Amino acid sequence: MKKLIQCVPNFSEGRDKEKIEKIIDSFRGVEDLKLLDYSYDNDHNRCVVTIIGTPESLKASLLVAFGKAKKLIDMTKHTGQHPRMGAVDVCPFIPIKNTNLKECDALAKEIGKAINEEHDMGFFFYEKSASTTLRQNLAKLRKGQYEEMEEKTKNPKWAPDLGEFKVNTGITAIGARMPLIAFNVLLDTPNLEIATKIAKAVRHLSGGLRFVKGIGIDMPERSITQVSMNLTDYTKTPMYRVFELIKIEAKRYGVNILGSELIGLAPMDAFIQTTEYYFGIENLDYNQALEKHLME
Amino acid sequence: MKKLIQCVPNFSEGRDKEKIEKIIDSFRGVEDLKLLDYSYDNDHNRCVVTIIGTPESLKASLLVAFGKAKKLIDMTKHTGQHPRMGAVDVCPFIPIKNTNLKECDALAKEIGKAINEEHDMGFFFYEKSASTTLRQNLAKLRKGQYEEMEEKTKNPKWAPDLGEFKVNTGITAIGARMPLIAFNVLLDTPNLEIATKIAKAVRHLSGGLRFVKGIGIDMPERSITQVSMNLTDYTKTPMYRVFELIKIEAKRYGVNILGSELIGLAPMDAFIQTTEYYFGIENLDYNQALEKHLME
Repeated sequence: MKKLIQCVPNFSEGRDKEKIEKIIDSFRGVEDLKLLDYSYDNDHNRCVVTIIGTPESLKASLLVAFGKAKKLIDMTKHTGQHPRMGAVDVCPFIPIKNTNLKECDALAKEIGKAINEEHDMGFFFYEKSASTTLRQNLAKLRKGQYEEMEEKTKNPKWAPDLGEFKVNTGITAIGARMPLIAFNVLLDTPNLEIATKIAKAVRHLSGGLRFVKGIGIDMPERSITQVSMNLTDYTKTPMYRVFELIKIEAKRYGVNILGSELIGLAPMDAFIQTTEYYFGIENLDYNQALEKHLME
Repeated sequence: MKKLIQCVPNFSEGRDKEKIEKIIDSFRGVEDLKLLDYSYDNDHNRCVVTIIGTPESLKASLLVAFGKAKKLIDMTKHTGQHPRMGAVDVCPFIPIKNTNLKECDALAKEIGKAINEEHDMGFFFYEKSASTTLRQNLAKLRKGQYEEMEEKTKNPKWAPDLGEFKVNTGITAIGARMPLIAFNVLLDTPNLEIATKIAKAVRHLSGGLRFVKGIGIDMPERSITQVSMNLTDYTKTPMYRVFELIKIEAKRYGVNILGSELIGLAPMDAFIQTTEYYFGIENLDYNQALEKHLME
């Protein structure tokens, strides 16, 4: 059975459609690779690509795409709202099927090495591929952005893991991570303070569940608020646990849960896991989902 | 995008492995067709095959398989516990992806016609393909079994929809139906009477939900009982509604729900639907399940 890995490279070009299409072409018509989505905008001046494929197809297409990014994007001239440090800013690898984080980590490093050798571009290993705890967090790696990165990488603490910072291409964070689930729970209160308190109660940072990042967010049009979250490993911190815990915390304030929002894609197993919990299904094999048999 | 249809033909041969393999070979190495499963046993003396494929691949392979069944199975010599009326006893078509019941109905009739023309075998149209309400129900069609079928089909009320009953091949029920979900809810009581009462409360036959068939079943090894069900259209009678209704009914008897069992395959959308309900997800697009993008 084929190993399937998702990759979400971010290219620092969101304005010149011709350049963007040239980069995206690297992901078209590649055997065993599917281009799921790409989106870009003027303000952020970046293009976020979502592809899924076998390790081989990812390696082949990313080698081409990084080459094109090097040729077409000049970081000395780049402006935009989104924090960035390289022509390809970040390149995460996410296990989808018949594979795991460890293999994605190895693949990220292998592809980084191949790109470094072919295109002389520099890399940080981040997330699950990070060599130090400090480097796991993209925000910390990216702090100072492109403009301060040459100076920053001279400090041994921030020395690149592969190659070096280059004036024209900057530096790229590459590594393995679990699929993120963007999950927002809607609260029947306009009181942002309550939403924030609940977010703090469930998120890892302030004492909550291990794989939850979250903040309170105002939804003034509906006079409600929400706990807006990223679930960074739904296999270990399942969606139902987060949802039920929010319910319990909301009770303290006499606040009801109105429902929720799922933003973007979520792995099929997250839905199966949820069904398993609410129905208390015994001995469920996740391959009992019919369509899993169609994906080989 | 390819239309994917599931088909579950039942062949009246469960003892002669050589014959069975010859029939199964019809479904091997066919483009756009996947053999998901086949199982057979001595007692029932039948073989149940599960395949999924495009309309074209199903037509081509079933034409071959019915021909082999005609050649290899002689109903005059068939014995077995399972009620049966033909060498291929039943052949349902189930919409899986990019298709619907209407198209499956048309395909069932088209394939029946092609088989009748090539192999001179007779058919009833059943389930959603039935010409009368009476013919929707397989049990009613099959009543009297192979032994009485020649006589039965002389009655205009039971005249075959295509061709006629044949001594050696009998007659086959062919038609479209929704995917079945075999779902059992476990009750914390050894009292079969209570399980039966709850089954009656939720099933269509005795006043319950439209697409639920169910009975109470004893589980003496665990000293519990279960409501054993077939959900015949989960899109219209969702799993959560059945589960929550059983909870409500069980309350009358002071009985708790221990959990549930899912037998065999269930469509991915049933899991998504369940998650949508329990989290109250607003504006969920079922294509937000990542793997749906990998199935094209």
